[in-house]
Amino acid sequence: GTNGVESLDYEVIENYAYREEQAQRGRLFVIYQVAVKWFFALLIGVGTGLAAVFINISVENFAGWKFELTFKIIQHSYFAGFILYVLFNLVLVFSSVYIVTQFAPAAAGSGIPEIKGYLNGVEIHGILFFRTLIGKIFGSIGSVGGGLALGKEGPLVHTGACIASLLGQGGSKKYHLNSRWLQVFKSDRDQRDLVTCGCAAGVAAAFRAPVGGVLFALEEVTSWWRSQLMWRVFFTSAIVAVVVRTAMGWCRSGKCGHFGSGGFIIWDISDGQEDYSFQELLPMAVIGVIGGLLGALFNQLTLYVTYWRQNYLHKRGNRVKIIEACIISVLTSIISFGLPLLRRCSPCPEADPTAGIECPRPPGMYGNYVKFYCRNDREYNDLATIFFNTQDDAIRNLFSAKTVHEFSAPSLLSFLVMFYTLAVVTYGTAVPAGQFVPGIMIGSTYGRLVGMFVVKFYHKPNIEEGTYALLGAASFLGGSMRMTVSLCVIMVEITNNLKLLPLIMLVLLISKAVGDAFNEGIYEEQARLRGIPLLESRPKYRMRKMTAREACGNQKVVSLPRIVKVSDLVSILHSNKHNGFPVIDHARNGETLVIGLALRSHLLVLLQTKEDFQHSPLPCDTQSGTGIIRHHFTEFVKPASSRGLSIEDIHLNSDDLEMYIDLAPILNPSPYVVPEDMSLTKVYNLFRQLGLRHIFVVPRASRVIGLITRKDLLIEE
Amino acid sequence: GTNGVESLDYEVIENYAYREEQAQRGRLFVIYQVAVKWFFALLIGVGTGLAAVFINISVENFAGWKFELTFKIIQHSYFAGFILYVLFNLVLVFSSVYIVTQFAPAAAGSGIPEIKGYLNGVEIHGILFFRTLIGKIFGSIGSVGGGLALGKEGPLVHTGACIASLLGQGGSKKYHLNSRWLQVFKSDRDQRDLVTCGCAAGVAAAFRAPVGGVLFALEEVTSWWRSQLMWRVFFTSAIVAVVVRTAMGWCRSGKCGHFGSGGFIIWDISDGQEDYSFQELLPMAVIGVIGGLLGALFNQLTLYVTYWRQNYLHKRGNRVKIIEACIISVLTSIISFGLPLLRRCSPCPEADPTAGIECPRPPGMYGNYVKFYCRNDREYNDLATIFFNTQDDAIRNLFSAKTVHEFSAPSLLSFLVMFYTLAVVTYGTAVPAGQFVPGIMIGSTYGRLVGMFVVKFYHKPNIEEGTYALLGAASFLGGSMRMTVSLCVIMVEITNNLKLLPLIMLVLLISKAVGDAFNEGIYEEQARLRGIPLLESRPKYRMRKMTAREACGNQKVVSLPRIVKVSDLVSILHSNKHNGFPVIDHARNGETLVIGLALRSHLLVLLQTKEDFQHSPLPCDTQSGTGIIRHHFTEFVKPASSRGLSIEDIHLNSDDLEMYIDLAPILNPSPYVVPEDMSLTKVYNLFRQLGLRHIFVVPRASRVIGLITRKDLLIEE
Ligand SMILES: Nc1ncnc2c1ncn2[C@@H]1O[C@H](COP(=O)(O)OP(=O)(O)OP(=O)(O)O)[C@@H](O)[C@H]1O
Ligand SMILES: Nc1ncnc2c1ncn2[C@@H]1O[C@H](COP(=O)(O)OP(=O)(O)OP(=O)(O)O)[C@@H](O)[C@H]1O
Ligand SMILES: [Mg+2]
Ligand SMILES: [Mg+2]
Repeated sequence: GTNGVESLDYEVIENYAYREEQAQRGRLFVIYQVAVKWFFALLIGVGTGLAAVFINISVENFAGWKFELTFKIIQHSYFAGFILYVLFNLVLVFSSVYIVTQFAPAAAGSGIPEIKGYLNGVEIHGILFFRTLIGKIFGSIGSVGGGLALGKEGPLVHTGACIASLLGQGGSKKYHLNSRWLQVFKSDRDQRDLVTCGCAAGVAAAFRAPVGGVLFALEEVTSWWRSQLMWRVFFTSAIVAVVVRTAMGWCRSGKCGHFGSGGFIIWDISDGQEDYSFQELLPMAVIGVIGGLLGALFNQLTLYVTYWRQNYLHKRGNRVKIIEACIISVLTSIISFGLPLLRRCSPCPEADPTAGIECPRPPGMYGNYVKFYCRNDREYNDLATIFFNTQDDAIRNLFSAKTVHEFSAPSLLSFLVMFYTLAVVTYGTAVPAGQFVPGIMIGSTYGRLVGMFVVKFYHKPNIEEGTYALLGAASFLGGSMRMTVSLCVIMVEITNNLKLLPLIMLVLLISKAVGDAFNEGIYEEQARLRGIPLLESRPKYRMRKMTAREACGNQKVVSLPRIVKVSDLVSILHSNKHNGFPVIDHARNGETLVIGLALRSHLLVLLQTKEDFQHSPLPCDTQSGTGIIRHHFTEFVKPASSRGLSIEDIHLNSDDLEMYIDLAPILNPSPYVVPEDMSLTKVYNLFRQLGLRHIFVVPRASRVIGLITRKDLLIEE
Repeated sequence: GTNGVESLDYEVIENYAYREEQAQRGRLFVIYQVAVKWFFALLIGVGTGLAAVFINISVENFAGWKFELTFKIIQHSYFAGFILYVLFNLVLVFSSVYIVTQFAPAAAGSGIPEIKGYLNGVEIHGILFFRTLIGKIFGSIGSVGGGLALGKEGPLVHTGACIASLLGQGGSKKYHLNSRWLQVFKSDRDQRDLVTCGCAAGVAAAFRAPVGGVLFALEEVTSWWRSQLMWRVFFTSAIVAVVVRTAMGWCRSGKCGHFGSGGFIIWDISDGQEDYSFQELLPMAVIGVIGGLLGALFNQLTLYVTYWRQNYLHKRGNRVKIIEACIISVLTSIISFGLPLLRRCSPCPEADPTAGIECPRPPGMYGNYVKFYCRNDREYNDLATIFFNTQDDAIRNLFSAKTVHEFSAPSLLSFLVMFYTLAVVTYGTAVPAGQFVPGIMIGSTYGRLVGMFVVKFYHKPNIEEGTYALLGAASFLGGSMRMTVSLCVIMVEITNNLKLLPLIMLVLLISKAVGDAFNEGIYEEQARLRGIPLLESRPKYRMRKMTAREACGNQKVVSLPRIVKVSDLVSILHSNKHNGFPVIDHARNGETLVIGLALRSHLLVLLQTKEDFQHSPLPCDTQSGTGIIRHHFTEFVKPASSRGLSIEDIHLNSDDLEMYIDLAPILNPSPYVVPEDMSLTKVYNLFRQLGLRHIFVVPRASRVIGLITRKDLLIEE
């Protein structure tokens, strides 16, 4: 296909080799297979959990050292501190972009659109390679640690998916890390189930939100879902939670440096506002509308930025990509260091011993009220509190309750504008980048702004600005990503305040509705831009009036006879790029009969191995069964980390070209068919719901052999 | 079909009437329809929320008065108090069983298996009637208020589904509560989407757990799911949460009697244990195993009990049902009053002012340490604390933290045995009955027992018995209902302690796995017993080796010609009970051609209206389009609250019988077809995933007209 996009086959190809294999399976093998599935779910959970811990430890330590050092140096010289800060960031970002451009180009970006595409049925070349995994892990340490306006959550989802996929093929062949006995799963379908688990594990690890992970996998990424799978996905998420929690418990005593200080709940606001009055619903709705508008704008702007990058900037090679990332890094450093310098410090509020919040915060710690470029000792810089800080800590400060009037409106506004711009500009640079945390940053800033006005005008003691910040965060994510249930659960799990659930729901509903009026969600938009052909769950309205035949246009079907001459086959495969060919045979009475579908990849295997070549153009007897199945069904399995065979790779001598092949043993004998005048809506549903790759459009049948109803399918085991 | 079970048609019948209707639709009508869908989602939320509030107010007030009065009277005479208690319960239970047996027989039981069946594709007669709704609401007030060992959660799900279904058909025709302009939704499919919303609303209202509601609808009841629907279901749940919360806020000042004292979170244990050590995982796993065993045993016992009731006891008529319920009521009263009398009181623990728990609890209030039949003033009866109490309060006491050593092992054990027995015996009486709350009772009892041992042996200060009670509850529900994600979220939402999530997950995984080794979940078992033919999501293993033709057996297909003589049609409809008939026509060249599927219900409409009768056996011209569509497509819609037409209802004179009908305008021109040798696994997936009712098995096609791939379906609007 074009630009490395290829469809997957979620349908089971029931050819003779497969049936043979099925027949030979003992009860024991089935049990073994189920056990391996669960074992893999466990491994995916452990692997993703450990990857997340590793990334977190690295990022938090790099960022921790950076700020510790900088704060130490600016005691003496702001200029020296500034230089150190810029260089530190630059080195990290450079290493990230270097790894990505030189070693793992598929690791750039968030990866979620690609994974979405994979689970929808199209594979993008390179997206699940071992090198992509490595690039993703180390690249995101650099890009997040280097203080860019991006997050590590999207990359973690991709990481989980890579781990799952690599496990599924039994390790990476290229790096000789594979093992034969793990290669139980051979179909695209099993592979896809594992990747679904990996996605959920990624979200569960990124947000320490196991239920949110399951829902994310369900709502956002998978196009096809079975309830048996839910159970396994759930297990994987639970494992991730246990692994991360255990690691954090182990790190608590300071063994891991700066890591683990935040606790299992990332931004705990369980001490925040629990109640709300009807009056407050209005400002909350306003937050929803703002979220929808800003989110849709964000999607649109990033679309333009990515389009420009894709078609102009990044065409000029890796050097440009590296320079670009470095420029953005320096820019980000300058703004985040410089802007707070311009801001006048505010005096600390009167100490409130019950809240336990010190002002200014003690040096070398996390917390509110950062002292930065202040003359007076009991002063703090509100802009530095959010800007000159890691994103995690900034969000914690924005969400914090009991800190009324900490931030001033001008600070929040200037931060909002600057950070929004940075996030848009950073989007699409050649580093691993997630949109969750920047989205939360943006959202919580305007949320807190609205909260300040509410506090000012409503004069109620129980209103917390932090709660509004949380709602703002939810609204921006809703307006940009257009998720509902999963986002809601993730927000609750990361903040540990269940009582705000109805409010989060409300805000999300509004922001999604507003956003939907303008464009699609960011993942869909990006997928479209990258040429990933996603099939939505809903058929298009136009399809109601079209029939299956109309959808085929006036295509001339390229089909194969059952016994095909090798030279003919080669020339057919050369003459087009189709991946599936109907196979037509002649019945005894001379009529033609469609006997199945042959996949290009299977035909290529036949041509390569040459085992099936025969001298006579007569069918081998499929009834007797002897000597037909020369292939084990695993031979037909496409290796996940390579492009598979191509017709150009196959070289046959002139003797070979004169031989024949009987296609009967390898073809899929019963692809799904639709009558020519079925409406396209129905065809679409069939295609999409069952995860198909090819459907035959056939003439109306001449008779009905039988009718299958529910009763016929109620077969007891 | 047998015992009132009939299949639903989730497929859109694209006959001429439907196409006509589609063609006439303006853009405005589509917008109107979408708006109505959302409006209905809102109404379902409001309706279910209000129903839940009404049920809760009634139940809590009845129960409150009952215990208040009884406690007052036993100050003077235990015997008089006992009589009052028994009578009060008896009256409530009698009214419940009377309503159900005389007025709404379909309201008996939990209703979840039936709703599951409906969403799987089979309708059970009467399950969504208006009278069932009324019976369910008032019946469950009686049965729950009357202190039986059952809950109101299952019935609330059914209530939500009824409300949704009634809205969908624009009110109840029978009771003249319908309105024409609301009748926008005419297909089984739209109806089903509404019922899905209703289910989620029911759970959201029952547990005040909106996310749990969405997940329950997704995981447990629906067989078929679209992501667009999720969004609407989510909205409904959010509305329910807002309605219930608002009502509770309004009631807080005591306007609603005993209602609303518990707060929005039913059993808040956010002050409970937050941390756990690895040592504790062992007893927690033990809880999981116990839950799996007891849950599976519960399913098996209730299966026997229901089987016996269904086949012997309840065949003897309503009188027996009423007597049975009354006997069980008296028995329950005697045990719950009498057993605590036998138990010696324990001295109160030393007062702990920080915990804020008084011992014994002040009269007329809720709380731990109930004083019942104690001689000493500073004594309490631990058995009465759980047994002589509403289930809600008992669970609150069992879950409560900071009350170590409140319960003694013998009390908990004897309660466990008695309550388990009562729950099994009560299951299947002719009253609305849920299994959630009894399950939580049972589970939390043995959970607390295990917790007591852990506290005793591990000597750790931070272990709470209440946490173990919660885990026990989760394990029993997991072992009985076999839900995973939704149950987990519900448990978290009702207890407001997110940090226990991984533990709940672990326990659930174990108990479900253990339970699955013995039998199926309670809803599946009950559905099977009631003859509801559920299609599981996974095809049976045997199907891999079967073909579509084998599934049809040697059935002789009953088909119709395009132009059928009325007398022939009538005799065909009389001669069998099939609901779908292939229609065969002759092409110009004399070959036969399958032109579609005619549904019995549509044929009956034709026979009844007689509008299409014609004298000549010649086809009307479908191309010109004039005069063919004599029916509006709504005429073919089966009324949801009646059995629809039957061939016995149709009376034709001899002139009519000599006429002809052209079936072309009313038939479904493109039912899904499968080639005869497709494996049954694939057929099953097609049938199940697309929610079909009929599939034609046809001979292999003679040629392929076209091939549809992903590219052909990427049509822009
Ligand atoms: N064997 C065939 N004969 C004729 N047309 C075909 C054949 N296979 C596919 N097409 C058509 O060619 C167009 C391009 O499809 P393409 O060849 O990419 O399909 P494919 O490669 O088999 O499927 P995919 O690209 O999704 O893996 C589509 O419109 C499709 O209908
Ligand atoms: N038109 C028909 N001709 C012959 N056999 C049929 C026909 N319709 C259904 N059957 C077969 O009869 C058996 C009983 O099915 P039944 O008649 O109940 O189907 P139905 O009523 O059309 O579908 P359902 O009961 O699910 O609504 C099934 O095995 C089915 O395959
Ligand atoms: Mg292609
Ligand atoms: Mg039937």
